[in-house]
Amino acid sequence: MSDTKTVRFGLLGCIRFASKFVRTVTESSNAVIIAISDPSLETAKTFATGNNLSPETVTIYGSYEELLNDANVDAVYLTMPVTQRAKWAVTAAEKKKHLLVEKPPAQDATELEKIVEACESNGVQFMDGTIWLHHQRTVKIRDTMFDSGLLGDVRHMYSTMTTPVPEQVLERLTKEAMGLAGAIGELGWYPIGAALWAMSYQMPISVRALPSSVSTNSVGTILSCTASLQFGSTATTTAIVHCSFLSQLSTDLAISGSKGSIQMNDYVIPYKEDKAWFEYTSGAKFVDMHIGWNVTPERVTVDCSGTPETQEAMMLREFTRLVEGIKRGDLEADRRWPEVSKKTQLVVDAVKKSVDIGCEVVHL
Amino acid sequence: MSDTKTVRFGLLGCIRFASKFVRTVTESSNAVIIAISDPSLETAKTFATGNNLSPETVTIYGSYEELLNDANVDAVYLTMPVTQRAKWAVTAAEKKKHLLVEKPPAQDATELEKIVEACESNGVQFMDGTIWLHHQRTVKIRDTMFDSGLLGDVRHMYSTMTTPVPEQVLERLTKEAMGLAGAIGELGWYPIGAALWAMSYQMPISVRALPSSVSTNSVGTILSCTASLQFGSTATTTAIVHCSFLSQLSTDLAISGSKGSIQMNDYVIPYKEDKAWFEYTSGAKFVDMHIGWNVTPERVTVDCSGTPETQEAMMLREFTRLVEGIKRGDLEADRRWPEVSKKTQLVVDAVKKSVDIGCEVVHL
Repeated sequence: MSDTKTVRFGLLGCIRFASKFVRTVTESSNAVIIAISDPSLETAKTFATGNNLSPETVTIYGSYEELLNDANVDAVYLTMPVTQRAKWAVTAAEKKKHLLVEKPPAQDATELEKIVEACESNGVQFMDGTIWLHHQRTVKIRDTMFDSGLLGDVRHMYSTMTTPVPEQVLERLTKEAMGLAGAIGELGWYPIGAALWAMSYQMPISVRALPSSVSTNSVGTILSCTASLQFGSTATTTAIVHCSFLSQLSTDLAISGSKGSIQMNDYVIPYKEDKAWFEYTSGAKFVDMHIGWNVTPERVTVDCSGTPETQEAMMLREFTRLVEGIKRGDLEADRRWPEVSKKTQLVVDAVKKSVDIGCEVVHL
Repeated sequence: MSDTKTVRFGLLGCIRFASKFVRTVTESSNAVIIAISDPSLETAKTFATGNNLSPETVTIYGSYEELLNDANVDAVYLTMPVTQRAKWAVTAAEKKKHLLVEKPPAQDATELEKIVEACESNGVQFMDGTIWLHHQRTVKIRDTMFDSGLLGDVRHMYSTMTTPVPEQVLERLTKEAMGLAGAIGELGWYPIGAALWAMSYQMPISVRALPSSVSTNSVGTILSCTASLQFGSTATTTAIVHCSFLSQLSTDLAISGSKGSIQMNDYVIPYKEDKAWFEYTSGAKFVDMHIGWNVTPERVTVDCSGTPETQEAMMLREFTRLVEGIKRGDLEADRRWPEVSKKTQLVVDAVKKSVDIGCEVVHL
């Protein structure tokens, strides 16, 4: 268990959603879960049973602190409510644990900056859990559409993350549970991150929440919001991002460039694990007399049926690659991943600020 | 030629694009082109030759006026520049000609109102040339998604019409050629119309052009614009409409409802004439552990390979049905079509006004 080829994980938080991470680690060849923790020992025990984590190999703690004091733990996966993430992420970094933190990793950029600083000064890797960035499809689009020039310059983007919450639950979405940014942090993180990704992490010069697009519940939590992001000094690149707890599930990403365009409707979580696709056109125009197009969308399918090829496995692979390298002393912590998180958080904050000041423009 | 079963058309304007209409009429069983006109007789003659319109059956006029004085002409198709449409449309109505007018039918709602009034007081049918509204796919979506309840209440829409214009041509897009609304009239007509269609022609309560989304050329013609439309008294339905001469061809329409969502990327002109499709999901959610969806998009294909089944043929069929009915004395002019045009124009005007006042909100 102490070799450098195995990353030993501990869970900080035993929410139901963490089962996916357990499954991914269990299926991997170079990672293992050796401890789990939850402020409720009962919750942790139930989670262990439900996820086939045997007490013989996995230590179950009734507090995060105990787990962080376990010297055998190399890395932690944080899933507790966003309002507590900064505190425990900083503590974990100080205990020299590498950090994989559910998104959004913090309530705002100030908190995130503290986490990242703690990671840097303690030489541990930070990564947030935005899984889709690791999907092979995402990599393929970068190669085949952006780097090849098929898309041209990005001119317009549209991205969504909407998922319906039953009406009686909407009122229970408190700021304590969701963080101050509400849906913008919880859901908007994805479309905002998608726009940044498409722009190769060039920051927008300004953002604006759209008046009347903002809904809140009776305790003031933001439930839906549409915002526009402006990139560059000219008016040629705009992203529209939309997040909502009031709409049907949608995870759309459309990118229009000067030469081509890309379309996906499942960029956050692909419809199926074993394959994913995107569609594109390049050099499209109407045919003579405008009775059709010269092209129909090309569908590019990425086969993910191998192991480990799911997006979760790819994320874990990247994270463990870095942690192993750092453990061996071959690598320093990769600053690109915290940079991606910080930029995303800064734009989330800017959209939230725009909402706060009556949907006025916020310059970055 | 004088029976009520054949609608005898004259063309007001012989632009290249009018070839499509000629083709549609030629293929129809109950319409015929008997006259064409252009201020340049040479242009009209060239058009006749290029479109196999024999001088034996088609009279070629060197002025619109002459054609409008031809008592054999039942209906006219107007394609001259938008800045001249109102003048000639009104004249045509006064000459008792039924009107099929290319979109946008006028420069603004005031002009359009004059056209529609002239049509009403002269008992002739008015219809603008927004072809996609007549496509069988459009009808099918209405039946299968809206009326059936699969979509639920519309919560969010995104629609585009972008088509690239070569840089050296952009400067030649003058207000004289394009009308005062520029791209908003010429292209934005489609996404604005799509949003209205999806809302069953409920008008938005307010619209706003997005700051920094607006580009103009050196002579002040609007080349691109993104705008948001708010519907209803609550904040629950927003449409984002985007039009641009600076992007790759895109004609996207995404409608998110409380239960389902619809997606098309060729709503204006389908990729192929012989069939068209749309995709939808209904009741979509992530499966357990969020490793996929419970559904994949359902593709509904509409076979248009029969005759006349293209969207152009369907539009002509509706127009001739009305004209024949009016000629027979069985029908009055259908006011729904001018109503659709007027509502679309009012929203185009409102977006244009928002641009003019620095992208402030315009209430309707």
